[in-house]
Amino acid sequence: MNNSLRHHIPPADRDRLQLLPPDDIAGKLSRIRSLMAAQDVRTMVIGDNANKFYLTGRVFAGYIIIREDRVLYMLRRPNHLEGDGVHAIRKPEDIPAVLAGAGITATGMTALELGATSYNAIQRLAKALDITPGADADAILRQARAVKTPHEIELMERDSQLLDTVYGRIPSLYSEGMSDQELQIAIESVTRRLGGLGILRVNGDEMELNGGSVLAGDNADEPSPYDFAMGGRGPHPSLPAGADGTLIKPGMTVMVDTNGNFNGYMTDMTRTFACGPVNAAAAAAHALSVNICRALECMGTPGTPAKELYDRALKMAADAGMDMYFMGHRAKAGFVGHGVGIAINEVPVIAPRSRDILQEGNVIALEPKFVIPGTGAAGIENTYVVTPGGLRQLTHAPENLINLLP
Amino acid sequence: MNNSLRHHIPPADRDRLQLLPPDDIAGKLSRIRSLMAAQDVRTMVIGDNANKFYLTGRVFAGYIIIREDRVLYMLRRPNHLEGDGVHAIRKPEDIPAVLAGAGITATGMTALELGATSYNAIQRLAKALDITPGADADAILRQARAVKTPHEIELMERDSQLLDTVYGRIPSLYSEGMSDQELQIAIESVTRRLGGLGILRVNGDEMELNGGSVLAGDNADEPSPYDFAMGGRGPHPSLPAGADGTLIKPGMTVMVDTNGNFNGYMTDMTRTFACGPVNAAAAAAHALSVNICRALECMGTPGTPAKELYDRALKMAADAGMDMYFMGHRAKAGFVGHGVGIAINEVPVIAPRSRDILQEGNVIALEPKFVIPGTGAAGIENTYVVTPGGLRQLTHAPENLINLLP
Repeated sequence: MNNSLRHHIPPADRDRLQLLPPDDIAGKLSRIRSLMAAQDVRTMVIGDNANKFYLTGRVFAGYIIIREDRVLYMLRRPNHLEGDGVHAIRKPEDIPAVLAGAGITATGMTALELGATSYNAIQRLAKALDITPGADADAILRQARAVKTPHEIELMERDSQLLDTVYGRIPSLYSEGMSDQELQIAIESVTRRLGGLGILRVNGDEMELNGGSVLAGDNADEPSPYDFAMGGRGPHPSLPAGADGTLIKPGMTVMVDTNGNFNGYMTDMTRTFACGPVNAAAAAAHALSVNICRALECMGTPGTPAKELYDRALKMAADAGMDMYFMGHRAKAGFVGHGVGIAINEVPVIAPRSRDILQEGNVIALEPKFVIPGTGAAGIENTYVVTPGGLRQLTHAPENLINLLP
Repeated sequence: MNNSLRHHIPPADRDRLQLLPPDDIAGKLSRIRSLMAAQDVRTMVIGDNANKFYLTGRVFAGYIIIREDRVLYMLRRPNHLEGDGVHAIRKPEDIPAVLAGAGITATGMTALELGATSYNAIQRLAKALDITPGADADAILRQARAVKTPHEIELMERDSQLLDTVYGRIPSLYSEGMSDQELQIAIESVTRRLGGLGILRVNGDEMELNGGSVLAGDNADEPSPYDFAMGGRGPHPSLPAGADGTLIKPGMTVMVDTNGNFNGYMTDMTRTFACGPVNAAAAAAHALSVNICRALECMGTPGTPAKELYDRALKMAADAGMDMYFMGHRAKAGFVGHGVGIAINEVPVIAPRSRDILQEGNVIALEPKFVIPGTGAAGIENTYVVTPGGLRQLTHAPENLINLLP
């Protein structure tokens, strides 16, 4: 059997709710508590799957309550998990009794995940806790999650190594007469067989996508509803983004932007393939994208405003006379990069009006891309860790425009 | 090229926002307006992707405003779509000016999608519209979507035919020494090549799943966080449901519950396979599941309380001495069926405390399943349309326990 497809928890740990190394959870809590203190938040109630995974290394049904001096885990399902601070509940209305039993009678200002939870679910929680929604736990967690711990960076390094393997196999997956979707399905299958989980976590309600985006020829110039870096008509009006069944033909570029999600953390990478020789503008745009990455890698030190990276990328595109193709042609994406981790779109955002300042431990994807009408998309995307020496690259598949034809 | 992978909109219609047949949208609006009138709702604002797809046949960024006498489409992206009542906006704050321009000065009681939209997004919309959130558009749409139109039923029939094809190929995908995950990946690949979109829409924030669930042996008895009909440890603690890498061995059952989503509508089907001879209890449980489906098919006429179907299924399980295995063993699912359509979990809910009454045009999945410790899951699931003559079956793959070994 394929070992990459075995469940990853050792049997001895399977009933433990908390799966993270103690120093990892300690580091995360310390950061979260600083952010809480800055907003006078005394209590946080966490129910979002991505946030629970961040804080425990697993997804369960229930809540995590973070206080200054302790953490309580309110477990709804599965009910056999154990550990310090684990309490069984059946519904949100049970939380106050558990808090009272733990000696917590006043919760002070309480933050709920207002950006990640439905209005109805927040109203129900607020009523159960007898509070008025105000402070946003999701905003605090978003800031906390933006700076990765060493354990998280290790998980992302492992993800990127497997994603490198996927990209390395793409030329061998292509055969003449294939459509963009057929190539995508072959890539998905390799990704899954290497252990990809088959889900893509996206922040916000709006953006839906299957395993990834494969854009051939002019489909790259089709505007989509979503603020992804590239559009594409998609396979169906129910999923209007990405591959649309375009037959891959000589002279087209094929841009592949796919994710693995091998361990709950994702890295983000794009490579562009060429179906035989492509026109000079596309080749030049691709080389420019690589050059923009090199320039931003040096700039990306802690303390640098994220918007300066965007401005530099746009200026390099304009200096090359390529700004009309930069980040799309008929429709443009409003950014050149974004944080990545448990979700594919985290902070910081590398965009013209971003107020984010790069911090050591941010993990960001940079994707300076171009759409050349008549040929297709060009450019690359890499995932990086922000370090004092600049951006450290995690994604290492070859960056050149790779010919698919023999 | 594989024709099933071509984009489905004819080029002439690609720039039209509204893709549904006029009688289909008329029928849906008539139903919605009755539900609105019953709650004194004058205006509904729809932003959820599934609800927008229901009302237009496509997903776009923006809102649909439903009033007594007209429908307005507030289009954010892509901005080239056209049609009656289409107005461009850049952000929710632009909605009031568009309404005023259309001569709508008082919106009356306004329903927002409180169950499908984040608290922050609702607060922003409510502020833009100068209203207090109260009426729930999501609840109204849930009721409307529960009764499918003839066009929707036709789409679900097409989905089920392709899903039948997928299930028919499963025995040929199995080879000795495979794990549950390897089989699942092979099934996903067939599904995608037949045109499956590769996304699974689930109502609510909590439940996450990749393409489907393949449960081999005792992994079927592993409790998961989600209220799915069966659990499974899943591939990783980040995705704790479904296949976990269990090697498929003689004597085990393998339950496959996978979806196609070939056109934005899903049907739901489960079949159980046997790795050679399995023990008598599992075979009996499987036969009982088929019998329960037959009994409920006759009962499922318009006007029947959904809970009566659940009660009958449970009684049949108890009469056979199988209630300890019914809908799970270590953990139990709290229902035996559910509505299905654009999302995999719609209303009505076939559960002991359900207040839903079956209506003509409901489409429901019934999944009376059992978990036999030491062997695995047994049983089937079919999708049905509620008709005056009882349940009409849409999913037609062979229902017997199918042997995987040659």
